[in-house]
Amino acid sequence: MEERVWLRDVGPRDGLQNERVAVATELKVELVERLMDAGVVSIEVSSFVHPRWIPQLADADEVFARIRRRPGVELSALVPNERGLDRAIAAKVDAVHVFMSASESHNRKNINKSIAETYPVLRPVVQGAKAEGLVVRGYVSTVFGCPYEGDVPVSQVLSVVERLFELGIDEVALGDTIGVAVPSQVASVVREVERIVPLDRVSLHFHDTRGMAIANIYAGWLAGVRRFDGSIGGLGGCPYAPGASGNVAFEDVLYLFEKMGVETGVDPVRYMDVVAWLEGVIGKPLASHARQVARGACEAT
Amino acid sequence: MEERVWLRDVGPRDGLQNERVAVATELKVELVERLMDAGVVSIEVSSFVHPRWIPQLADADEVFARIRRRPGVELSALVPNERGLDRAIAAKVDAVHVFMSASESHNRKNINKSIAETYPVLRPVVQGAKAEGLVVRGYVSTVFGCPYEGDVPVSQVLSVVERLFELGIDEVALGDTIGVAVPSQVASVVREVERIVPLDRVSLHFHDTRGMAIANIYAGWLAGVRRFDGSIGGLGGCPYAPGASGNVAFEDVLYLFEKMGVETGVDPVRYMDVVAWLEGVIGKPLASHARQVARGACEAT
Repeated sequence: MEERVWLRDVGPRDGLQNERVAVATELKVELVERLMDAGVVSIEVSSFVHPRWIPQLADADEVFARIRRRPGVELSALVPNERGLDRAIAAKVDAVHVFMSASESHNRKNINKSIAETYPVLRPVVQGAKAEGLVVRGYVSTVFGCPYEGDVPVSQVLSVVERLFELGIDEVALGDTIGVAVPSQVASVVREVERIVPLDRVSLHFHDTRGMAIANIYAGWLAGVRRFDGSIGGLGGCPYAPGASGNVAFEDVLYLFEKMGVETGVDPVRYMDVVAWLEGVIGKPLASHARQVARGACEAT
Repeated sequence: MEERVWLRDVGPRDGLQNERVAVATELKVELVERLMDAGVVSIEVSSFVHPRWIPQLADADEVFARIRRRPGVELSALVPNERGLDRAIAAKVDAVHVFMSASESHNRKNINKSIAETYPVLRPVVQGAKAEGLVVRGYVSTVFGCPYEGDVPVSQVLSVVERLFELGIDEVALGDTIGVAVPSQVASVVREVERIVPLDRVSLHFHDTRGMAIANIYAGWLAGVRRFDGSIGGLGGCPYAPGASGNVAFEDVLYLFEKMGVETGVDPVRYMDVVAWLEGVIGKPLASHARQVARGACEAT
């Protein structure tokens, strides 16, 4: 088995959209460029949703326009509809992220549509993006549990994944939106998904709400997944309480794989420099374990 | 494979000894009794080291004397020497924890002796405890890395484990003192240790310094270990910074196994009530993931 993993940093989008303080456009650009300098080859940069929904990311077009691109780096963005796709194409994104939920109530709450009604909305986005030669990734929320419905049957997850591939997506990203998954569950869901999709088309996206994210990533790795999301500094996913965990921190995932001897392509020292820099930008301590260790918060003996 | 795990709560000893504010004796007694009420069957209650070393635990004798014992619950204590053993026997402990490090410099720093010089000190403690019919557990620190030496060769760990069993210990507990282990390493160390000790005599003790503890416990579980330490509220192991991680939180370990469908014997609802109560006792928020979720710090949707 190839000892290589591909890590995507969703911090610029999923992280910054949850910050109360808006980050200046040039600092967003600088963040993405610093991440590329550190060796990150897949970055979710922003979102082409209507600025009314997420004002923090209203400058998506400008951010993309100003980033000095690097060969071999995929810059992606969330795209909810055809209007968003037009903007994404104009902004020259490399990859388009469409999204929906595996559970009815969460999908309705987030997208204001039933699951069945969502596919017709996604179809022209997926097809339009494919026609432009873009990578299309389908982000599926609440794969491992729903805040409204609790457990989500794997059959429901498989049905959504199958339909998304029928629409034409290239890859799927399975999200533990509320951070309830445990590793045995991850192993079992991945096994099921593998029956319909080869694992080189599957990413896993974990939140660390209950402290299970790294264990879930390890379980995904053992099951054969090689693509994982993380967010710089653990930003995002929980806008309400500093210290409370949302997205798993990219640098903690990095520690896991680097220490296991798995090639990530990312330079951990340079990456941690970006974390320190970002802490200055947003003006508050970042809560990742790796950052706390770097700050010398605790080196117990 | 039996779907059962035995969890030990080291919070009353390892947690409270690191608190700046001394906890009243009657509250320590109440903590242990509340843990037993919640179904915890193995508790490290205190330490019979000289009060000059750890004044917070100077009341070990009285704590043991006042606890109303329950059948089937093992109450243990750290015992550094023969004087401590006399006190432990008088206090009617069920199990004695002797301790040393797998790395020379950490052992010297902590015990002020070389590894070779430590065995003659432990021998009379182990033999004296066995003569009283007590369980003796050997806690080995820095198994997965040393703050002074970095990597610790597995051969060194095996040598210490082997010598401790020759002295007469019943069980060994392998500690990741500075929280540097990753799951692949845990799997490999456990495999090696299993060649000299059956795994029902092996516990794992993880610190969550780098956020790897739950993944490491999962790796230990997959490798066949069924005994794990945790500390209520994640207390202990890092006295310097609130929020920085020392011991893995018992309640996070509990979430892992309960959600995986593994029997723990512990009632999660009652246990979380003890966490909430303890938070009031020590007068600061406890930083475990489970506690933050219970406080509603973040239920991302």
